[in-house]
Amino acid sequence: MTRPSRAAVLLFAAALVAAPAWSAGTEQAAPAVDPAVLARIRDAALSSDWAYQRLSDLTDKIGPRLSGSPQAEAAVTQVAAALQAAGLSVTLQPAKVPHWVRGEEQAELVDYPGRPEGLTQQLRLTTLGGSVATPKKGITAPVLVVHSFDDLKAHAAEAKGRIVLFDKAFDQDLASNGQAMAAYIQAVAYRVQGASAAARVGAVAALIRSVGGADFRLPHTGVMRYEDDVPKIPTAALTAEDAMLVGRLAAQGPVSLHLTLTPQTLPDADSYNVLADLPGSDKPDEVVLVSGHLDSWDLAQGAIDDGAGVTAAMGAVQLLKSLGLQAHRTIRVVAWMNEENGSGGSKAYFAANKDKLAQQIAVIESDSGAGKPLGVIASVTPDSLAKLAPVTAALQPIGATALERRDGEVGADIAPLQEAGVPGFAPMVDTREYFFYHHTAADTLDKVKPEYLRRQVATMAVLAYYLAQMPEPLARVQAEK
Amino acid sequence: MTRPSRAAVLLFAAALVAAPAWSAGTEQAAPAVDPAVLARIRDAALSSDWAYQRLSDLTDKIGPRLSGSPQAEAAVTQVAAALQAAGLSVTLQPAKVPHWVRGEEQAELVDYPGRPEGLTQQLRLTTLGGSVATPKKGITAPVLVVHSFDDLKAHAAEAKGRIVLFDKAFDQDLASNGQAMAAYIQAVAYRVQGASAAARVGAVAALIRSVGGADFRLPHTGVMRYEDDVPKIPTAALTAEDAMLVGRLAAQGPVSLHLTLTPQTLPDADSYNVLADLPGSDKPDEVVLVSGHLDSWDLAQGAIDDGAGVTAAMGAVQLLKSLGLQAHRTIRVVAWMNEENGSGGSKAYFAANKDKLAQQIAVIESDSGAGKPLGVIASVTPDSLAKLAPVTAALQPIGATALERRDGEVGADIAPLQEAGVPGFAPMVDTREYFFYHHTAADTLDKVKPEYLRRQVATMAVLAYYLAQMPEPLARVQAEK
Repeated sequence: MTRPSRAAVLLFAAALVAAPAWSAGTEQAAPAVDPAVLARIRDAALSSDWAYQRLSDLTDKIGPRLSGSPQAEAAVTQVAAALQAAGLSVTLQPAKVPHWVRGEEQAELVDYPGRPEGLTQQLRLTTLGGSVATPKKGITAPVLVVHSFDDLKAHAAEAKGRIVLFDKAFDQDLASNGQAMAAYIQAVAYRVQGASAAARVGAVAALIRSVGGADFRLPHTGVMRYEDDVPKIPTAALTAEDAMLVGRLAAQGPVSLHLTLTPQTLPDADSYNVLADLPGSDKPDEVVLVSGHLDSWDLAQGAIDDGAGVTAAMGAVQLLKSLGLQAHRTIRVVAWMNEENGSGGSKAYFAANKDKLAQQIAVIESDSGAGKPLGVIASVTPDSLAKLAPVTAALQPIGATALERRDGEVGADIAPLQEAGVPGFAPMVDTREYFFYHHTAADTLDKVKPEYLRRQVATMAVLAYYLAQMPEPLARVQAEK
Repeated sequence: MTRPSRAAVLLFAAALVAAPAWSAGTEQAAPAVDPAVLARIRDAALSSDWAYQRLSDLTDKIGPRLSGSPQAEAAVTQVAAALQAAGLSVTLQPAKVPHWVRGEEQAELVDYPGRPEGLTQQLRLTTLGGSVATPKKGITAPVLVVHSFDDLKAHAAEAKGRIVLFDKAFDQDLASNGQAMAAYIQAVAYRVQGASAAARVGAVAALIRSVGGADFRLPHTGVMRYEDDVPKIPTAALTAEDAMLVGRLAAQGPVSLHLTLTPQTLPDADSYNVLADLPGSDKPDEVVLVSGHLDSWDLAQGAIDDGAGVTAAMGAVQLLKSLGLQAHRTIRVVAWMNEENGSGGSKAYFAANKDKLAQQIAVIESDSGAGKPLGVIASVTPDSLAKLAPVTAALQPIGATALERRDGEVGADIAPLQEAGVPGFAPMVDTREYFFYHHTAADTLDKVKPEYLRRQVATMAVLAYYLAQMPEPLARVQAEK
């Protein structure tokens, strides 16, 4: 096989071509990992609702699970019990996490061109995770609408004492075209960095247009970060509709807002990653990690972010255990804590394993929702890609045959391990509508199709087993310069 | 032309066939209404943004306009001024309207099967218009989930002391298939009658599943009515997602809710319909009414319900005036007050005209949103239908050629006039997504495409001018037995 390009590669054809080599009755060498076993794993996944039942338990019985909350702790307990009951060897790995609590969130248009005497308008918004509070009675200030960081710089002289609104639209066309992450990255910079950028030019608060592609007046929350050298100012996301409204009014004349946000940042809390091992038969110290994150934002049950991912990971390993399969290497479920606002779980795992990174053979994280599984994203060396053909061949009956090589991070929690050279993987799923719901109140169980979750379990179980069973691990990946 | 069936009739073909009869140079009689004038009206509408500008003013400058609110009064003033400035003869017609004010609305799952010790879950809901309040501290009660009125009867013995949830799904497939109103009627019975039905069997509160077809966790408000012979109990709409959650949990065991609703019903308020006449040249006492409603629910700006309808009606008559056209009969804009919760405006108009109903020649109301205009819905006698062919012929270039005869009401405000025999009309628009947004916070200006609003103005202006210019009025319609 020719060396694949460094760019994304789809191996539909390779998977199909590879299949006959493993047919019974040929004289070729037996494959290193028995394709019949991979097929058995896939088929068992497609007839199991264990993962969906866990997802139902997590979302229906607990609800939102923001780090530091009693709900997050209940999720740790619930998931640990489920993995224990599945016969896996469970460990709680301590992690320090932030404990941020949303308070009131209100915004009112108190002046604008053409306002009828005495009237105001309520806007819909949600405080961004990590934001400081306004004074209890709120602040009233004129609004400066900008569309980019450059635009803010161009209007820096007008920002002092104002509430800056970054009115940057999420590019749903891009997202609908299979580039949801690119669309997210474009817009999310304002969520993460907007407050400090606005504070740097003297603003008293920062608002963004919600990072999401639907038009149902939903505010999208998410983490923000303060830079150390500027004052911390309160920050929130308006719905797209309200950002557009403020933009239209501001184009006609001065607009003033009254803004009240009363979040609290409490002392960091003690929490846990949930680890559950299916020990390897002869290389138990070598680990293939299969993961998703257990925490969610606080506006909804976090069914697609990331209930589906974490329960698919759990389901993949429960399935292997229930089939009595044991690979050469250990397969480890990790239900990460605190992906959303601090990566405390990810840091704790890395710290606990930093002296034995060579034993971390491969890391898989599912954190792109519960859309139709399409294949596998692999952050591996170009030469490694072809070695994955048996995985996509096994997934052929469910159509999850795309195999895309990507440089760099494919999951937030596994990023430190990837940076240390560990090959990283994620199931590829349809994300065209992911950012309709992401970080909103509408991220609820009904958004997950049981059949797609079964297919995601199939994808992760086949991939994890294959990676744990290969005679030689895949090559380590050089970090990008 | 053969007599059309009483069923819905699409006159695409008739419109096309009729056209040649009006071509210049034939020896046939000139048409009663000059098709060139209808074409001129249409084309002028397609190049005018007057209606969209009025819609922007109404939604962006005022916001929600529930009857009795200061915003509704500001809307009366704004719209009257705009119609006056357009050169029409404006009258404010007094109407008594309810004054209901939404208060707090909270629901919390306080017990359910599998609930982790000490945890509860917040639900999303909105109080239904007209509901009484719970005590200030709320009520806590077990939930009885039913799926229909029959189901409630079957479980009547279990309802005493409970909160009844009517978990009836809106049939979006039906709505997507061009039967949005049928889908609405199926589900809305529970919104309107649910509270009294539940009270009749001893329930302490009633919840419904929101009447709407999208999945973005939006509660849909709307009016409800109490029957006189049972206690008034508080009532609200859960989001579809939350209704499903409660349903799933209740299927596993007892569920209890804490419900707090604090609406207030204040004394009836004085308000107004805004009437604006373009007087007829020789039959000024005969009136063709072109209308939409000015009030909206209080959760959003009411851009599609019914800002688009009322501003399209205004735009239709402003357009005729700006073109210097005067029909035989008077064309009257009515911006109705209080369509949403009491029909105070509709009743006031009928009362003021009940002794001169013969002068009400035809009534048009647009109240199905701002979707793509598709043609005209006509509640007329079967024989009248063919006489409308010139209207759809004129609308041929924008594709609004469907002509559907319907028995009975085609608009809530014009229903009393229709019942008295006046031919009734509505623009037919694409309503497949109307109930995604109807009565929710997401009914905002961005949902209205300016081009579709222009086409709706074209439809209403051509229809209104034609009806006002026909030599003989259309036949009166017998009320259905």
